[in-house]
Amino acid sequence: MKTLKVIKIGGNIIDNDEALQQFLKDFATIKEPKLLVHGGGKLATKLAQQMKVEVKMVDGRRITDADTLDIITMVYAGKINKNIVAQLQANNCNAIGFSGADGNTIVSDLRPSKPIDYGFAGDVKKVNTETLEILLNNEITPVFCAITHDKNGQLLNTNADTIASELAIGFASIFKTELYYCFEKNGVLENVEDDDSVIENINTATYKTLVENKVIFEGMLPKLNNCFHAIHHKVQKVCIGKSSMLFNVNNKHTTITK
Amino acid sequence: MKTLKVIKIGGNIIDNDEALQQFLKDFATIKEPKLLVHGGGKLATKLAQQMKVEVKMVDGRRITDADTLDIITMVYAGKINKNIVAQLQANNCNAIGFSGADGNTIVSDLRPSKPIDYGFAGDVKKVNTETLEILLNNEITPVFCAITHDKNGQLLNTNADTIASELAIGFASIFKTELYYCFEKNGVLENVEDDDSVIENINTATYKTLVENKVIFEGMLPKLNNCFHAIHHKVQKVCIGKSSMLFNVNNKHTTITK
Repeated sequence: MKTLKVIKIGGNIIDNDEALQQFLKDFATIKEPKLLVHGGGKLATKLAQQMKVEVKMVDGRRITDADTLDIITMVYAGKINKNIVAQLQANNCNAIGFSGADGNTIVSDLRPSKPIDYGFAGDVKKVNTETLEILLNNEITPVFCAITHDKNGQLLNTNADTIASELAIGFASIFKTELYYCFEKNGVLENVEDDDSVIENINTATYKTLVENKVIFEGMLPKLNNCFHAIHHKVQKVCIGKSSMLFNVNNKHTTITK
Repeated sequence: MKTLKVIKIGGNIIDNDEALQQFLKDFATIKEPKLLVHGGGKLATKLAQQMKVEVKMVDGRRITDADTLDIITMVYAGKINKNIVAQLQANNCNAIGFSGADGNTIVSDLRPSKPIDYGFAGDVKKVNTETLEILLNNEITPVFCAITHDKNGQLLNTNADTIASELAIGFASIFKTELYYCFEKNGVLENVEDDDSVIENINTATYKTLVENKVIFEGMLPKLNNCFHAIHHKVQKVCIGKSSMLFNVNNKHTTITK
């Protein structure tokens, strides 16, 4: 069984031209089948301000009305995705940009409007791997933005971490799948102020304790829930850390195990 | 040899939600391998105005500075392309959106800055059909926006009519290729005021006369140059007219022959 690396990058890379350029150069050197998922960074909020569309967030999640959906579709699937694809091509990595609508790869349900109405937000229902498998077997690298569809013509704003874990799970019976969440820290930290205090291994039992002791809180909770969801659904390896963990074996990071 | 239909749609369909919805419903019923190319319509200009980016046109062509390139990438590759793909999926047509950067499908040269500096505008240099052929043979429909790349990381604004003719030419040795330019009129008109005055057939000789007699002028000249370029490079059939020509054999239109 071949290995597939599913790699998610966030705002700390996307919002920094130089960091993004360096990351994509490194990413292009990965020989195994690979799949990139990118978040949106700060550009969507910036464009919303320019267009005088109000930005509404609840618990760190964007309320996606029709204007906001247009904005994120333009920024995520347009500007960010196509520039990433063009840069990967320049590094001889044959990439194709995807939303979940493309190839019907990710179908979502509109999130229920209770208790909070998030508007055009999608919860992943099904990943269709067939088309992506053809591409991966032809050494083509899919690059996903954080947009899915409902198969009835409606695009839906969807959490990029969730897209990464669901894609990894979708491929887990076809490839030996590894999931990497790249972000601005070296991993899950004992002390959020100290980037050297990486917890190198978290399993289901230690996770419970870390949550109870409030070492893990806020935004790290959904990220880690995605990690455990993946590791409990046949994903072989799940890691969190700086993107350098992919290219430097000595780089400290957090590994999630059952 | 299988038939491939390359179909280009423009502003009259893209700018009208109902017309677009109906067109995509009809398009999805086409059984043969097919490829859609869409222009940008008025949305890019509207967004530029909202973002207070000056719109500069010379001879009907957009001057593409860095801000304008961002805008067209957001509108063409983002909003328009992804909404078309989502609607095709709703009609059970398995579509994937493309710019020329995706799959390195269309490589362009930056247009020379003399006599007019069009900024980030690309002239098509090479079409790579390999990836698209895999998709077409798997009943997947590529949907192209009018953006290409230079293979060095730079996206380039590229004329949608040209993209359609170059794609048709690129496939002409693999498929029996047909090229359809859909626009707001029934075809090339004897009298621009009279939509019934369709010239049903134009060949190289009659074209010359029509240009000399100024029956064909302005925006129709580059469109027809693209048509003749295609018909002289092994494209089997080239037609201009309303999109209804695709679905109703009795619909008048213009056919281009050698």
